[in-house]
Amino acid sequence: MAITVVGSVAFDTVETPSGRKERCLAGAATYFSLAASFFTDVRVIAVVGEDFGASEQAVFDAHKIDTTGIQHAPGKTFFWQGSYLENLNEARTLQTDLNVFAGFEPKIPDVYRDSQFLFLANIDPVLQRRVREATPQAKLVAGDTMNYWIKDHKPALLEVLKGLDILLINDTETRMLAGNGNLVLAARAVMEMGPRMLVVKHGEYGATLFHKAIPGAPESRTFKTPALPLEQVTDPTGAGDSFAGGFFGYLASQRELTPGAFRRAMFYGSVMGSFTVERFGTERLQQLTREEIDHRFKLFRELTHLD
Amino acid sequence: MAITVVGSVAFDTVETPSGRKERCLAGAATYFSLAASFFTDVRVIAVVGEDFGASEQAVFDAHKIDTTGIQHAPGKTFFWQGSYLENLNEARTLQTDLNVFAGFEPKIPDVYRDSQFLFLANIDPVLQRRVREATPQAKLVAGDTMNYWIKDHKPALLEVLKGLDILLINDTETRMLAGNGNLVLAARAVMEMGPRMLVVKHGEYGATLFHKAIPGAPESRTFKTPALPLEQVTDPTGAGDSFAGGFFGYLASQRELTPGAFRRAMFYGSVMGSFTVERFGTERLQQLTREEIDHRFKLFRELTHLD
Repeated sequence: MAITVVGSVAFDTVETPSGRKERCLAGAATYFSLAASFFTDVRVIAVVGEDFGASEQAVFDAHKIDTTGIQHAPGKTFFWQGSYLENLNEARTLQTDLNVFAGFEPKIPDVYRDSQFLFLANIDPVLQRRVREATPQAKLVAGDTMNYWIKDHKPALLEVLKGLDILLINDTETRMLAGNGNLVLAARAVMEMGPRMLVVKHGEYGATLFHKAIPGAPESRTFKTPALPLEQVTDPTGAGDSFAGGFFGYLASQRELTPGAFRRAMFYGSVMGSFTVERFGTERLQQLTREEIDHRFKLFRELTHLD
Repeated sequence: MAITVVGSVAFDTVETPSGRKERCLAGAATYFSLAASFFTDVRVIAVVGEDFGASEQAVFDAHKIDTTGIQHAPGKTFFWQGSYLENLNEARTLQTDLNVFAGFEPKIPDVYRDSQFLFLANIDPVLQRRVREATPQAKLVAGDTMNYWIKDHKPALLEVLKGLDILLINDTETRMLAGNGNLVLAARAVMEMGPRMLVVKHGEYGATLFHKAIPGAPESRTFKTPALPLEQVTDPTGAGDSFAGGFFGYLASQRELTPGAFRRAMFYGSVMGSFTVERFGTERLQQLTREEIDHRFKLFRELTHLD
């Protein structure tokens, strides 16, 4: 099944203990699309500027990602500069230039109309809601958000949550959204806001899937995936978006959304995140093979299974 | 196989968001012994004061823990008072009275001489080393330590590490001991100091087993256990010591220390830690049954296994 994703395509300049890289091709929609493209067809809705050229387009083309919905606007592409020199777990933002993203009006191409999977990456909840409402055929809708929207745009965000099947956020965001410091209680409160599943991403400690009910197994339980212990994290940017791409991409590739499919999807999410952080920006995803993914999936099994 | 454990028996007064409890029976050796007693015979070396009476002795007796090595000294038992009101993940120490512990000289009763498993709980590394040297028959030796010894008593601690098979410490301690912020590299550096295995405890995120080699499977990999998502953490004190008791107790109950035994031991460690935090002090461990342990072990499997 095809996935439509709406979100940012960006250039990032990043400095980490491993070095500095100028203007990496990045943005949540880019990480998500590349990660999901190993599992299913992906269609992007985004906006780029005049500095998005043939070499950037070639990255999407090489992964057979449909870019009909990427609008080209006069001006520059969204630019973000951040540093992980003090803390590899949290970026310090040095510069944010919204550029063409400031006037972004998502438009859904007619050829995307049959997408049954929809991913709303971290953007203004007003835009997320608009895309959700314009995609009534979607049978599974997932999304991301961040502290900024939770703190200052909560009413709009709550409207989005009503239309989501799955929300993917981190520990801090979960606690902030629920106003509860206990993760289990916070997760339950967030699911009361709409989504029937919640993936809480713990960074270097993996992720937890909470749910009210999985089709076919309403009683099934919470599920945990670890992150891979890595000797070097070159650039943590995009790990969460890559997790979402692996998770949702794998789900979209399945005929039936069984409890087992969700468990494997959690592993594939962790797998994709573990690759992304090995190099700057989307470099690692750009060069990845399906064989490497399958090999690492086995590593995750060995890392967690008793037998 | 019997385990000998040396460490503290204490009274704790604790305040947490769940309430306040005066003079709980606590201390690393107490948590460890109770947790391990569900799996194997346990023998304690510790010191208590005149305030350690029949009701405290009865707790050890009810779990068939050999207390021949608990010395009774004039004065009061080790007392600790701490608060988790600001942060459930880290205690703020309000008072520490070493009392009889200040003059503790561990003595190993003759009836303990055939213990093949030795656990050195978190005490002065000078004492840990003395007990280790007086227990040459031990075939598997594990131990714990803390930031205080790493920071200010490193030479003595390094001597202890040379005699350990397994060290169990947390993330911060691992990074501090190795002087390396990357956990994988830090773990490797710590194992160069002596222990062939390292269990890094991540609090609410579980634990990771690193090793140089496991008997019979030198190539086997890192293993992860999560912590159980809990709706209420009443008192986090002793979770790490209970983990160690479940982990080491299970190992001591096994005929062969296969890679699978170490994996299951990690799960039993998490299981015992998850019970301890449900109530104040050792209350939950005192009332626990083997059936509850086995049931929770199954929950951990469901939480982590794909099939």
